[in-house]
Amino acid sequence: MAGAFGFKGCQKIRGPQIRGLLEAKDFFLFDCDGVIWHGENAITGAAKVVSSLIRHGKNVVFVTNNCTRPRENYVHKFSRLGFTDVMLDQIFSSSYCSALYLRDFVKVHGRVFVMGCEGLRRELLEAGVPCVEEADDDPDATIYNCTLAPDVKAVLVGHDDKLTFLKLAKASCYLRDPECLFLATDNDPWHPLSGGRILPGSGSLTAALEVASGRKATVIGKPSRFMFECISSQFRGVDPSQCLMVGDRLETDMLFGSNCGLDTMLTLTGVSQFEEAQGYRNSDLSTNHSFVPDYVVDTIADFLPAFEELEEQCD
Amino acid sequence: MAGAFGFKGCQKIRGPQIRGLLEAKDFFLFDCDGVIWHGENAITGAAKVVSSLIRHGKNVVFVTNNCTRPRENYVHKFSRLGFTDVMLDQIFSSSYCSALYLRDFVKVHGRVFVMGCEGLRRELLEAGVPCVEEADDDPDATIYNCTLAPDVKAVLVGHDDKLTFLKLAKASCYLRDPECLFLATDNDPWHPLSGGRILPGSGSLTAALEVASGRKATVIGKPSRFMFECISSQFRGVDPSQCLMVGDRLETDMLFGSNCGLDTMLTLTGVSQFEEAQGYRNSDLSTNHSFVPDYVVDTIADFLPAFEELEEQCD
Repeated sequence: MAGAFGFKGCQKIRGPQIRGLLEAKDFFLFDCDGVIWHGENAITGAAKVVSSLIRHGKNVVFVTNNCTRPRENYVHKFSRLGFTDVMLDQIFSSSYCSALYLRDFVKVHGRVFVMGCEGLRRELLEAGVPCVEEADDDPDATIYNCTLAPDVKAVLVGHDDKLTFLKLAKASCYLRDPECLFLATDNDPWHPLSGGRILPGSGSLTAALEVASGRKATVIGKPSRFMFECISSQFRGVDPSQCLMVGDRLETDMLFGSNCGLDTMLTLTGVSQFEEAQGYRNSDLSTNHSFVPDYVVDTIADFLPAFEELEEQCD
Repeated sequence: MAGAFGFKGCQKIRGPQIRGLLEAKDFFLFDCDGVIWHGENAITGAAKVVSSLIRHGKNVVFVTNNCTRPRENYVHKFSRLGFTDVMLDQIFSSSYCSALYLRDFVKVHGRVFVMGCEGLRRELLEAGVPCVEEADDDPDATIYNCTLAPDVKAVLVGHDDKLTFLKLAKASCYLRDPECLFLATDNDPWHPLSGGRILPGSGSLTAALEVASGRKATVIGKPSRFMFECISSQFRGVDPSQCLMVGDRLETDMLFGSNCGLDTMLTLTGVSQFEEAQGYRNSDLSTNHSFVPDYVVDTIADFLPAFEELEEQCD
């Protein structure tokens, strides 16, 4: 697609070029954190972009590696931040897709040990995937004396701000059984917080468990193709060439688009910088080229003038 | 040295060959867990081996990646398990060597944030290396609202059975400062427990922090050469060719010996199996050859008949 406009990868685009993209694409996939909002603050103009896309008959889905909330909470958050037309079936989180993977793809028989937030466990339970109850309330429990459930057939790692050594140790013990699956919601290494602080991500906890177990996790979230397969299974006739993946992180969002054959757009309101994208583009290492976005915008609000042009045209 | 006896690497040796080694070597380095003891049970005959070596004028030191106890505790443990002649200056633990690294090698100015056991912190304090006080008692503290110390100049990771997400997150934040050093006591991935359970090791926690920080830790313990440098600095005239490193783990003990130019002996009372050593020996990958022991014994008690022969010879 990028070639059709005569652009090279990693090109900053504006009004008329964005309008061309809006006309060419049917399906818009957005990451959330750093693209649509920062925590509890919507990116200025993002709500209008989303409603304009929907009003113009485009399909819009949200593809997030954030695994800490069930999908209903996303619907509430969208509504709270002024996105009035986002429905449950537009939301593809790594926790929801993990539940689909366990229930429909591998059809797990047995329970799942979750090293992750309560929201992840709730998403699994809502999908009918049974989890081991966490009963770490006993302060004297250690890996030497705790009970291990006999029927754990999968360990699922996600972001876990209640991580304890005991949880990590239990997960390591369950993974001694080669028939126990090892999944990670996503591999995000860290997330930016205000004041220069960072939050270790699922990828950090997954790395700990990979070392302790000597095994590699199957990653559900971006950049793995599985989330796109979930979308394709729920929206008929999704054509990758008609899709645009919009994200803020080169190593997850752009690589995800590249892995799934989608055109990609980097928005500079989040983690990755334009210079990093250029660095990947200029790299001699061909594997780095999968991180290069086709297009770059300062913010998704740059879509708005293009809608105005389209609307003037219709008048 | 191995060549002098006409052995190939990974050869099981017995009485006369062990006697040859005892005559040829001056300096015996022993790992502890899986070599000298299992938890609170001494390996049968190990205490007699150690005292016989000392009585024959050999230097004996203990080189352990276990970072959970200060060295005095090791002296007490040796004594409790029947090793009556082991002194403080024979014990080189990864926590002690980490303290030497921080105090004498990099001469850290500022405090150290320890993601590890209380014993590790105590070892640092005894060496005069100031640590950040852990005040995680507030159950409402999170990485969003907690205080970060302004003068942290090193993060040291070790085995930590009190690991929490907040500790990991704080360590990740400290490592945003490129001048803050990043050290790991050791890189052991896991440790065997009874009943098929395992305990995640320092290497597991280090991996989590490496991913969250995007940095690589400097490893103090085996297989890094630094512990041998500590021994050399405290025992004059240590000649690597006169040393034998005895351990139970190919990827740490044998590699450590190889990295330091020492002959190596695998004892089969611990983690690694003879077949794994043979696998490394037969591997086409030359880097795998550093894991191959020169000698293999079933247990260090196999030294005992050699001492009897030596003593008969003296009579």
